This record gives sequence, structure tokens and C-alpha cells, in this order.
Amino acid sequence: MDKLEETIAGLKYDEQGLIPAVIVDAENKQVLMLAYMNAAALAETIRTGNTHFWSRSRGRLWMKGEASGHTQQVQAVYADCDADTLLIEVIQRKAACHEGYRSCFYRRLGRDGAWEVIAEKVFEPGDVYGKSG
Amino acid sequence: MDKLEETIAGLKYDEQGLIPAVIVDAENKQVLMLAYMNAAALAETIRTGNTHFWSRSRGRLWMKGEASGHTQQVQAVYADCDADTLLIEVIQRKAACHEGYRSCFYRRLGRDGAWEVIAEKVFEPGDVYGKSG
Repeated sequence: MDKLEETIAGLKYDEQGLIPAVIVDAENKQVLMLAYMNAAALAETIRTGNTHFWSRSRGRLWMKGEASGHTQQVQAVYADCDADTLLIEVIQRKAACHEGYRSCFYRRLGRDGAWEVIAEKVFEPGDVYGKSG
Repeated sequence: MDKLEETIAGLKYDEQGLIPAVIVDAENKQVLMLAYMNAAALAETIRTGNTHFWSRSRGRLWMKGEASGHTQQVQAVYADCDADTLLIEVIQRKAACHEGYRSCFYRRLGRDGAWEVIAEKVFEPGDVYGKSG
């Protein structure tokens, strides 16, 4: 096992073999999204320089942007103190969110206790993913 | 049920009733840590204005900083598109990490495949938590 394989194996994965990865815009430090990696997704992310995740709903490895073209080019990978969370700085093409926003965190809790949208869409999902979603 | 209770109940929690919360420094946008909330922790966070989490290892609700004094004063709460992740901007007293660093993400993956510490400690854990840890 080389050093990188050892480092990947040394992280703490949950009972499903997953570790959360916080994805941050390398340029302005905005948090773009959170998604889950398994060891294979992290290895592929490092090998290719593009983020890969494990889709819990689809049960498969996917490259971010494989459908939309909105890929994420990895600039740096960080681990937290407990080695159970990753932070990855990326150059984000276009937008991270499939709803059309730059960041998935486009809703803020208002004083009335309801979510309010605080960002502008940068693309229309129907134009990118087709009418079937 | 009032609007806030409805909003909290409307989030997607995992099978253990938890939702990950990414904690960000409101001043410089640095990601400080990731921890887990249940509905009660989120309600208490909003009610008191200080972050509260569910400790998976200790099986109880805790206020960040209850031992160290390094509390987090909430400035804004965001939800992501899937309503299964929170992002919370805080004013962090002293430091977020129990290892003595401002952020828990103080290790970056190096070209040699090993983690390297890229931050300076801002306190000595032994001074804050006592010799027993």
C-alpha cells in the first residue's frame, strides 16, 4: 500500500463506508455543497483532479458535472481533527447546485421561521438537465 | 405547530434523526467544523443563539463551548437544496477545534500523500480542558 492509499484508508468512514465532504469555492471560500465519498470516490477525486462522490440514492459513483458539465477541479483536500470529515477547495464550473444556484445553500432562515431564497439563479435547470429533470 | 417548528420538522434527518451542520466563521467565511444536530439541537440553537449539537459518541445534547468557553454565536442559518444539510454562520470565540486550532480542518493532503498541518495552534488543549483531556 502506498502512502496515499494508507492516508485514504486511515480516514473514519461511517457504517455505510461514507465520509462527508464539504465543497468550498477556492476563489471566494463560499461553501458550495456537501456530498458523500467512499474510499473509491476519494481515490478517484485525487487521481483525476475532479470531484467524485458516492450517490446514496442511486447507489453508484458519479463525477460531479457528468450530466451538467458543471465539474469541480480540485485545488486542495483537508481532513478534520477526527478524520471523519473532508473539506475540498475547488474551482467550480458555472454552479454547484442542480437547482440552478451557484451554491446549494441558497435559503436562509428568516425571522418568521421560514426559509427565504437569498441567491439568484445562474442557470435554468430545465435548460441543462432536460425536461425530465 | 408554529412556523419555526414546522420548518425544523421539514428538514430531512438521517435514520438516527441527525442532520450535518457545516459551521462557518461569519467574519472570514472559514469553515470551522462539521457536527450533527437533531431537531432538538437545532431548536435550542435558534432559541439560545448558541450552537448546540447532538454528540453521537456521548449520546447527549451539548452546547459548543460548554467545557472550553469557546462558544459559537449564531449569525445565520442556511439549508441546502435537498434540506438534508445545514450551514451556520457564527461568531467563534477563540477557536472551534478541541485540538487547539481555529478550524478543525488544519491538515491538508500533501503531494506525498500524507496529511500536513497547515495552521498554528491558538491555544493548548491541556490548558483549557485539563490534563485528563
